[in-house]
Amino acid sequence: MAAVSGFSDEPTRVTQLVADFLAGQSGSVVEVMGGPKATLSAGADLRDDCAVYDVDGPVTLVVGSDYIRGSKFILYELGLLSDFDIGYFLVAANVSDIAAMGATPLGVLTVVRYPETMDDSAFRSVLAGIHEACTDFGTMNVGGDIGAAERLILSGSAFGACAPGRALTRSGARPGDVLCVTGPTGILGAAVAYFPKQEEMGWRLPADVESRLLDSWRRPIARVAEGITLSASGFATACQDTSDGLKATVEQIAAASGVGFTIDLSAVSIDPAVAAVAGLMGVDEHALALSASADFQLAFTLPAARVRECREAFVSKGLWFDVIGTATNELDIHAVAGGRTIPLPGVAWKHQRMDVSTLVSHGTRDDGSRPTC
Amino acid sequence: MAAVSGFSDEPTRVTQLVADFLAGQSGSVVEVMGGPKATLSAGADLRDDCAVYDVDGPVTLVVGSDYIRGSKFILYELGLLSDFDIGYFLVAANVSDIAAMGATPLGVLTVVRYPETMDDSAFRSVLAGIHEACTDFGTMNVGGDIGAAERLILSGSAFGACAPGRALTRSGARPGDVLCVTGPTGILGAAVAYFPKQEEMGWRLPADVESRLLDSWRRPIARVAEGITLSASGFATACQDTSDGLKATVEQIAAASGVGFTIDLSAVSIDPAVAAVAGLMGVDEHALALSASADFQLAFTLPAARVRECREAFVSKGLWFDVIGTATNELDIHAVAGGRTIPLPGVAWKHQRMDVSTLVSHGTRDDGSRPTC
Repeated sequence: MAAVSGFSDEPTRVTQLVADFLAGQSGSVVEVMGGPKATLSAGADLRDDCAVYDVDGPVTLVVGSDYIRGSKFILYELGLLSDFDIGYFLVAANVSDIAAMGATPLGVLTVVRYPETMDDSAFRSVLAGIHEACTDFGTMNVGGDIGAAERLILSGSAFGACAPGRALTRSGARPGDVLCVTGPTGILGAAVAYFPKQEEMGWRLPADVESRLLDSWRRPIARVAEGITLSASGFATACQDTSDGLKATVEQIAAASGVGFTIDLSAVSIDPAVAAVAGLMGVDEHALALSASADFQLAFTLPAARVRECREAFVSKGLWFDVIGTATNELDIHAVAGGRTIPLPGVAWKHQRMDVSTLVSHGTRDDGSRPTC
Repeated sequence: MAAVSGFSDEPTRVTQLVADFLAGQSGSVVEVMGGPKATLSAGADLRDDCAVYDVDGPVTLVVGSDYIRGSKFILYELGLLSDFDIGYFLVAANVSDIAAMGATPLGVLTVVRYPETMDDSAFRSVLAGIHEACTDFGTMNVGGDIGAAERLILSGSAFGACAPGRALTRSGARPGDVLCVTGPTGILGAAVAYFPKQEEMGWRLPADVESRLLDSWRRPIARVAEGITLSASGFATACQDTSDGLKATVEQIAAASGVGFTIDLSAVSIDPAVAAVAGLMGVDEHALALSASADFQLAFTLPAARVRECREAFVSKGLWFDVIGTATNELDIHAVAGGRTIPLPGVAWKHQRMDVSTLVSHGTRDDGSRPTC
């Protein structure tokens, strides 16, 4: 593909500018752990009405959809995220929902609507980000919708498969199960708390910490291998990604399962970048780690008797999780810290009505902003 | 559900205002003609990361995605289509792609992003339109993404299933096959040619003709039963919906299959409303019927020897198709009218660079308008 510039018309973009990202899809085979094979018999390279998969046996399918890039994808508007980055994020957000169900991703559909001010090079960058993310997560962008709009609009759907009956839902946690999370949370929220206010507040973190904050948005990781491991061995009783922040995730698993949780705050990993931003903000680092943040870690519950077995399966694949609490039959959620029982700190994402700024201001915002995307 | 008014916050909309449209989904069973059963074990009523289907045998899956409501969904902006109507259209456009593959729809994912000026009642109307269309087409809205944006954004994905290896693509037409279409085309394009210019041009069609033009947008029909019939019996060698207009569809089937077509213009059905608008515009009615138009008819090819058998299968289900031409090995497309061979009339949709107005003006437009959606 030669370097591109200028403003091609829609047929050229649909056919030529994306063609090398789609070439050779048809015929690809996806092996579903413990399930059937899915062969992509008609991929996006064939540009038919739909993509076509032939699945050779019984299977459980999972399907979900995420829009990104509302009016406040603020790090993009600040110039800190590139067109490539937001293409990458679109795929990560959609694949993360598949991972949270314990499924192997079969493909992603993407809607890329661009304004007339977006030139071919920028358009190609969005598609390149989508393509790289699909490659990183072991899947393919098998179609969608490309065309003009008055501004950039990015939306996606993802679908996946697992062995029959093995999908992980939010509703299976039982009293006595342990609560686990695949890694530290809150870093994407910390980035949004830091960069937009950096100048106003005179904040300056070391370059490596700033890079860590930005990389959380630039190359988010959908936890596909972790989800498949939890599903294939039947370890997890409930699972959800932490894309609303860890506190909201725990609340949602609790509500869906009809249990409560006791969280051991000392067991909750704190990313150094989250600690650094919490220090600048003058808030508790656990509060920031648990608050609204578009993380793609997985939170899940396990029968206590299976923790060692699950740990071994994870470690054998180079994966990790922290045990951070226990499900109870009390229906409420609280934390234990220094021997005291306290309310779980942090501000759960309430779909645009609250964000991490309330950690400081204790106000609510009605301006349509979202801490995530 | 009580009458709604006011401006609820996002959690209320996500949970309460849509709940009665989603209630009771989980446990629904979809029978795929000649294929396995698909049980929706976790529908949108459970609000998990994804919806979950358990499929009990080998299957071919088809998946596609359509965005609607660009800046020029012009009949909506003129107040001629309601919020309900565009919700309905979103589903029809997405299900039509599934129908064109010969598949049974399993479900639809919808992205509904609304501006802060959209009150609860209008928001509910969009969802009600989505719900009614899903019901009419025998499927379900199993999830997606609801939230705020600075304007209304509607996007969707649909997925379906057919018996293994039975999906219909655009590429199987062979010389000698006959070309068929499930009904008259061009009416949606005629509506877009008529209403925006009605006042300027002083046009006034009878009320029943105006209703017919608007109804084509308000209650478009995705040809699900026709597609399933073509797939299940293995009649069709190629199939595509006519959402780019019939001329573009024929060109795309020809290109994908490596054939040409001879079209008998006298066999192309003309909707009376298309004829009426063509008369006002002073253009040939066949040109308007074949031009860019977001119709959801199916165009398909059949071996000539199977026409009678296919006709009987259609008629027994109350369905219909017209035979309008023949595939050739000459690679070009032309029409026969009154014993003369002429170029196929009409203006094929070229993804925003041309529309039916060029039938009159012979110019091109670069304003981002689309004749469709």
